[in-house]
Amino acid sequence: MQQAIETLTIPTQGQGLYEFTPQVRSFVTNADVATGLLTVYVRHTSCSLLIQENADGDVKTDLNGFFARLVPEGMDWLVHTTEGPDDMPAHIKSTLTQTSIGIPISDGAPVFGTWQGIYLFEHRRQPHRRDVVLHLIGDR
Amino acid sequence: MQQAIETLTIPTQGQGLYEFTPQVRSFVTNADVATGLLTVYVRHTSCSLLIQENADGDVKTDLNGFFARLVPEGMDWLVHTTEGPDDMPAHIKSTLTQTSIGIPISDGAPVFGTWQGIYLFEHRRQPHRRDVVLHLIGDR
Amino acid sequence: MQQAIETLTIPTQGQGLYEFTPQVRSFVTNADVATGLLTVYVRHTSCSLLIQENADGDVKTDLNGFFARLVPEGMDWLVHTTEGPDDMPAHIKSTLTQTSIGIPISDGAPVFGTWQGIYLFEHRRQPHRRDVVLHLIGDR
Repeated sequence: MQQAIETLTIPTQGQGLYEFTPQVRSFVTNADVATGLLTVYVRHTSCSLLIQENADGDVKTDLNGFFARLVPEGMDWLVHTTEGPDDMPAHIKSTLTQTSIGIPISDGAPVFGTWQGIYLFEHRRQPHRRDVVLHLIGDR
Repeated sequence: MQQAIETLTIPTQGQGLYEFTPQVRSFVTNADVATGLLTVYVRHTSCSLLIQENADGDVKTDLNGFFARLVPEGMDWLVHTTEGPDDMPAHIKSTLTQTSIGIPISDGAPVFGTWQGIYLFEHRRQPHRRDVVLHLIGDR
Repeated sequence: MQQAIETLTIPTQGQGLYEFTPQVRSFVTNADVATGLLTVYVRHTSCSLLIQENADGDVKTDLNGFFARLVPEGMDWLVHTTEGPDDMPAHIKSTLTQTSIGIPISDGAPVFGTWQGIYLFEHRRQPHRRDVVLHLIGDR
């Protein structure tokens, strides 16, 4: 049994979904593990992780549109407003999605379905650099 | 340390919750692991996973009712509409629930609480066959 | 490769977020693992888990406020109402957040970001005692 761990830094340019499936696949390939478990973990509370369809870019547009409507800026009952109008909505959107996702490894690759990709979901308006930890445990 | 991996195929007949706790328990029993970690992963983006109460069927009805109201068909601002009126709401409902769930194993069984069961949450109207990967790592 | 498993009991006094980051850190320190994977799992369906900002208490207030508005008591279409007006909303809030969270371990500690803490999110009004299972697998 062996392990590998690495931190990706993903630059973001405002709200939306940023796919990083290729970096995840490379990490798994380099780790040389046939069967195991990959964990993807984001070290922030104003962005999050999603597995979603990567075939049609419109899906990303609509996901972003839904969350912008479900958790709008300017809700007048919010008390945590000192870090800007997009900050507390960003924390809420993070809690509605994922901070961590586990993905089994089989035949040396993540068991993603045909249309699945993994995304960083940025909830802040300003550019950020986001740290995502990849951890793998398994057997050759 | 040892591992086991298997893919379940779960047939669905429209929107709703489909419990597969017995199949998960059987997989763990057959793997003969006393302490470990089970990961349940769904290979699709228009259905998802849930752990919920399995004592009263009304809970399933109300969960389905809530998500149908939170993410209704026919939101007029959607752009991804080519795969039918239930498709984009299905993707959104998936992002609000789980693609992957990790469950510790103790004394040879998942540490489910008394009332917990694991469900596939189907978000599409048509029948589907859904692949769910079970992965286990642990010790005898 | 080694494992550790332990159950924390967290007392709650009504709806809100209860941080237990120190107990998680102690468990990892005592397990004496340098690199690995921690899984935190809650054995209930009317409370849940969150990783969120632990710097400003107002974030907790607003998270609680958002979920109280998104899933209000008294929705007149609910059928599961026998366990009190806060019960079915509690199940729904649980499905919108997490039952299980995986956190990589590096250099002997969880890879939490600077502002991240882990919380039990209680959705019931009455006091409860909540069981949270901590599982760790890794190497010295």
